[in-house]
Amino acid sequence: VTEPAAPPLRLAVLGVGLIGGSVALAAHERLGAHVTGWDVDPEALAEAFALGVLDAVVSAPEELTAADIVVVAVPVPALESTVRAACAALPEAVITDVGSTKHALVEALGDASRFIGGHPLAGAEVAGVAHARADLFAGSTWYLTPRDGAEGVLYERLHRFVAGLGAVPTAIGHAEHDELMAAFSHLPHLVANALVAEGTLAVQGGGIPATGPSFRDMTRVAGANPPLWAGIYAANRSALLAGLDGMLARLGAVRELVADGDVAALESWQREVAVQRAAFDAERAGGPLREVRAVVPNRPGVVADLARTLARAGINIHDMSLSPAADWRTGEIGVWVAEDQADRARDLIAEVVR
Amino acid sequence: VTEPAAPPLRLAVLGVGLIGGSVALAAHERLGAHVTGWDVDPEALAEAFALGVLDAVVSAPEELTAADIVVVAVPVPALESTVRAACAALPEAVITDVGSTKHALVEALGDASRFIGGHPLAGAEVAGVAHARADLFAGSTWYLTPRDGAEGVLYERLHRFVAGLGAVPTAIGHAEHDELMAAFSHLPHLVANALVAEGTLAVQGGGIPATGPSFRDMTRVAGANPPLWAGIYAANRSALLAGLDGMLARLGAVRELVADGDVAALESWQREVAVQRAAFDAERAGGPLREVRAVVPNRPGVVADLARTLARAGINIHDMSLSPAADWRTGEIGVWVAEDQADRARDLIAEVVR
Repeated sequence: VTEPAAPPLRLAVLGVGLIGGSVALAAHERLGAHVTGWDVDPEALAEAFALGVLDAVVSAPEELTAADIVVVAVPVPALESTVRAACAALPEAVITDVGSTKHALVEALGDASRFIGGHPLAGAEVAGVAHARADLFAGSTWYLTPRDGAEGVLYERLHRFVAGLGAVPTAIGHAEHDELMAAFSHLPHLVANALVAEGTLAVQGGGIPATGPSFRDMTRVAGANPPLWAGIYAANRSALLAGLDGMLARLGAVRELVADGDVAALESWQREVAVQRAAFDAERAGGPLREVRAVVPNRPGVVADLARTLARAGINIHDMSLSPAADWRTGEIGVWVAEDQADRARDLIAEVVR
Repeated sequence: VTEPAAPPLRLAVLGVGLIGGSVALAAHERLGAHVTGWDVDPEALAEAFALGVLDAVVSAPEELTAADIVVVAVPVPALESTVRAACAALPEAVITDVGSTKHALVEALGDASRFIGGHPLAGAEVAGVAHARADLFAGSTWYLTPRDGAEGVLYERLHRFVAGLGAVPTAIGHAEHDELMAAFSHLPHLVANALVAEGTLAVQGGGIPATGPSFRDMTRVAGANPPLWAGIYAANRSALLAGLDGMLARLGAVRELVADGDVAALESWQREVAVQRAAFDAERAGGPLREVRAVVPNRPGVVADLARTLARAGINIHDMSLSPAADWRTGEIGVWVAEDQADRARDLIAEVVR
């Protein structure tokens, strides 16, 4: 007598763009799930079905009849109503989303809901189900924001599902999530925009000047995906306002130090920040880091050589920056390595770039 | 009858730290110069002499008796007096410096001076003559700020000298230099500091959250070399105040958009910045760029493989960022390549990371 096979996981995906499509693919390939899909755009839905991303489709969220898990991956304005429709249609399912902010939605839905907020830290520079990939979430953090009253059985099911997609489920409070995202992602994006706008004003039609890599590194995310980011800024209104107010106060205080020519206070602040930054570095890397810089000659592949040489010696490159040219063929390179490997790294790099 | 050999270039270097020492070494090795040195610290001077960086030493700038070129590489507070001493001691020489700001010094010295400001875009994370390198300036931009009244023969001599060290001499007005440095380097450094301080406040002793690479990329320069940067902020007071005021006004305006929940205006600003950023990218790279992202598996050397594979196909990586982990072994990679090579790059990357 053999045990009957467990029935397949029943997944519903509402909104089959890049993220929804990738959830469907990963659930298919890694968990053998049966996936039902819906999208407000019938052509996108038909494309997803034709690509084999979905096993079944429905023409409205209300028409879902059975699911263990519902992943809502629609644009922010449609999020709350779609989650409500799924909650109403499927009294047994745990419902989650993939939005970048959690507080407003979780509060709007209230305690009684079977909704548990989610936020996978994954994406791509391309949109649409045609670019969906089963490995999109591999190794990434996927935040989950269960409320105090969340049913354990539902949370456990969602946690197992997210881990099954290859991601790392990480529980966090919804308000804390939004505050951290404001400080570490949304505020930096706004600041990057402002730096680009200031830089544009400064060059006034002239060329950008040669400088170190700070401007390029600090503006890499400027102007990212406009509809997506405008929605994120607005959705995280309260945490982002607090962050902006903090930033404005801080830069205002620095302005006074510069106006007063208070070199001692500026140096003391710079030292304080150096300690704070080193703490972040050490936390990320699991120990203190040190920077090693070298001039990289104009020889193709030298950066790759350098990366392989350090890897072979068991030295991890925790961070890297190139300046002033960013073309991987010339300029200065800075690598951040564990403090106790810095001298060895310097010697190895000197041999490579000789 | 043979022509007599040209006499060697006579160089004086005042301040023999990393930069001054590297100027001396490069002038020795590349130009066969005779180098006389001075430093306020007799031990540093003796070390430079013992290392063979200098041919001769003097115990005060006033004791210099002959030089074609004087490079003043002392800390900012001693800069003006040292330049004046060199001007007085050597009526034939062109005198230059290596400071990060130019306006205040050039104005203080006035029209009549034989001083021409300089600013090499090179450095290292280590200080002192022991780390001096003859190749420190190889391929780097070296700004020169001749005044309208600068003697052509002196400028030509300095230009030829800087090019002879392997750098790329680039003429620019001293006020314009400082405004561009404020917008593209000094303001970004202050903003990076403020982001680190805000982030430290947000985590309040807890761990840093998993996010995309924006925070790490934007805070790489936070807290850099405190005495050096405090001096730079103060020395570039007027341009930096203008930049800070612009930044404060801009972030204040964005704050209103966020407070009003004006998604349309936020999206329109995000689009405007995207165009500005693309213009900077295109100018740097000589053409429009596109980002290609991929999940990088947990396999040593995969990033190096990827860099070599693209190089072999003639595809230049103009910029690169790794997220969320920065350990070069796991996470998501984004590379910026020429727009017309992006599809090919995507295919090649897919093969490598398979």
